[in-house]
Amino acid sequence: MGERATPHLRVDVERLRANVVRAAASAADAGVAIRPHAKTHKSADIARLQLEAGAVGLTVATVGEAEAFADAGCTDLFIAYPLWLTDALAARLGALADGGARLAIGVDSVDGARTTATLLAGSGVEVVVEVDSGHHRSGTDPASAAEVALAASPLGVRGVFTFPGHSYSLDGRASAARDESLALTTARTSLAAAGMSARVVSGGSTPSLEHADASVLTEVRPGVYVLGDAQQWELGAMAPGDIALSAVATVVSHAGGRVVLDAGSKVLGADRAAYATGFGRLLDHPDARIVLLSEHHAVVEMSRPLPALGSRVLVVPNHCCTAVNLADELWPTTGDGPWPVTARGRNT
Amino acid sequence: MGERATPHLRVDVERLRANVVRAAASAADAGVAIRPHAKTHKSADIARLQLEAGAVGLTVATVGEAEAFADAGCTDLFIAYPLWLTDALAARLGALADGGARLAIGVDSVDGARTTATLLAGSGVEVVVEVDSGHHRSGTDPASAAEVALAASPLGVRGVFTFPGHSYSLDGRASAARDESLALTTARTSLAAAGMSARVVSGGSTPSLEHADASVLTEVRPGVYVLGDAQQWELGAMAPGDIALSAVATVVSHAGGRVVLDAGSKVLGADRAAYATGFGRLLDHPDARIVLLSEHHAVVEMSRPLPALGSRVLVVPNHCCTAVNLADELWPTTGDGPWPVTARGRNT
Repeated sequence: MGERATPHLRVDVERLRANVVRAAASAADAGVAIRPHAKTHKSADIARLQLEAGAVGLTVATVGEAEAFADAGCTDLFIAYPLWLTDALAARLGALADGGARLAIGVDSVDGARTTATLLAGSGVEVVVEVDSGHHRSGTDPASAAEVALAASPLGVRGVFTFPGHSYSLDGRASAARDESLALTTARTSLAAAGMSARVVSGGSTPSLEHADASVLTEVRPGVYVLGDAQQWELGAMAPGDIALSAVATVVSHAGGRVVLDAGSKVLGADRAAYATGFGRLLDHPDARIVLLSEHHAVVEMSRPLPALGSRVLVVPNHCCTAVNLADELWPTTGDGPWPVTARGRNT
Repeated sequence: MGERATPHLRVDVERLRANVVRAAASAADAGVAIRPHAKTHKSADIARLQLEAGAVGLTVATVGEAEAFADAGCTDLFIAYPLWLTDALAARLGALADGGARLAIGVDSVDGARTTATLLAGSGVEVVVEVDSGHHRSGTDPASAAEVALAASPLGVRGVFTFPGHSYSLDGRASAARDESLALTTARTSLAAAGMSARVVSGGSTPSLEHADASVLTEVRPGVYVLGDAQQWELGAMAPGDIALSAVATVVSHAGGRVVLDAGSKVLGADRAAYATGFGRLLDHPDARIVLLSEHHAVVEMSRPLPALGSRVLVVPNHCCTAVNLADELWPTTGDGPWPVTARGRNT
């Protein structure tokens, strides 16, 4: 693990490459395009690996991420988010399109679609209608997709998308994929009834990916699959041997007979889903659990013998997307490092 | 709230200054030094306000924070953390001391103290022994403080410190302050029995601050008091009218009859203590609760009428320290902005 100061984020390049290739091959076999969500890694280096492996473009979450990846030469970008456009945001999107980016953004309401159509008129930016498939976050009712699409139709309407985020549950991965398929079918039918065709029918989350319905979806947008995290491990969606991201941490204390690590919530993130067994896992100590997490301390309960004071361990964050956003650099295990986190903090 | 793109972090300067002055005056009245924890704001601008108001120096959590604040001219720095020193970390600390910084670091074990004493010999860096007062994170048993102090004693030993983090509970603020007083008294007595005096007896967290025992403590190290957050609001330690930090967010969707904001966990942080009623609060809507938080969505349940699509609201993060660490800039309500987050990401 080298003697670089801890905590820092480490990327196992062999695992990363295998994850990229496996998902790309699986999508190709199914005849579905893959447009990985780059919010997970925010890294131009990792994006290039995904594009070289056959990704049709990138998904991003914000205009700032789109700008960062366009600057890095990744120019086919879908902002999978129902942006509420202002003149300033529209100007930034217009500048990206003028610079040669092929862009689409999400819309999930008639009012939002009207504003978008007005402010992006003539820009070349297209839209995709977001529908709710059961996660109950953003997204319109699938049966109402056409109303939103019609309001946006002065612009090019590519189709429909959803995020089946309720796949993040211990027994809900397959059923979320079924919900996704049904919602997207309903949305596509809604558009067809209004005389519009959905060229893009886009879904996919990492936990639901293996169950994605290739008879309905034209595109999947997984993000986390490329790095992995403790959530995927605990959901059974990824094996610990496929997890490519970890925080290298030092044992700084044995206070109270437990292990205290120097990687806290400002490095790992504080995410803790209802199903999580702790605040993160130790890659090489499957029995260990982080039972208390503060900004610079992870308190670990684990079997003895405890790792020695001053020794280093690999911590798997619960959620890789938030961990990466905390770091300025990723340290790959091979080749030249570090990899800058190109779009770190570009959340606006 | 201006038309700066959302989400961004806003600092109410009037409230901030009032918080700084109130805590400084309270410490002065009690005859206790105040050494604010700068991990909360990571901002040289805010640190200068605290020092101008009478703070004796700053507390920080990492060597990286110490470097950032020393570069900004704040040169009396206590790293309140049981660093496990390597040659590289010791060299960085030595360079800071050579540059004129007055430095101390935490130690909480005999082994750690020995390593520290070896690697920092002749550097001028001093140590403070951390004891556990009931939070059960790091810190040695108070009765054993002298063993650690003796092992560190080739260096200057300033005294003892604790963090009564168990004050973060709905009914535990006063009792945590009593635990703090007892633990520090025990630790001070332990040192005295070994012929060492504790010049510094340091404690203090924001929730326990008003109960801090000035007959025992020589110094308090509150952090959050300067900005405030939803945790302090819900603990009853700060009134909403004193909270100086918020995220300006836009209503992007009314999906499902709820409010969806564009400030998610990559702006607010994902902290959610056991006592928290949600993932953050809305400053001007006390009934509102963030019931679902993902990276770029905060789903809010609140009374009607809902804020309009495209309108802006002020979101109070659960934990200001982690929110600030996500941002590159803070936007003050008066004067020239932005304030850079000087030590953002300096968590190593």
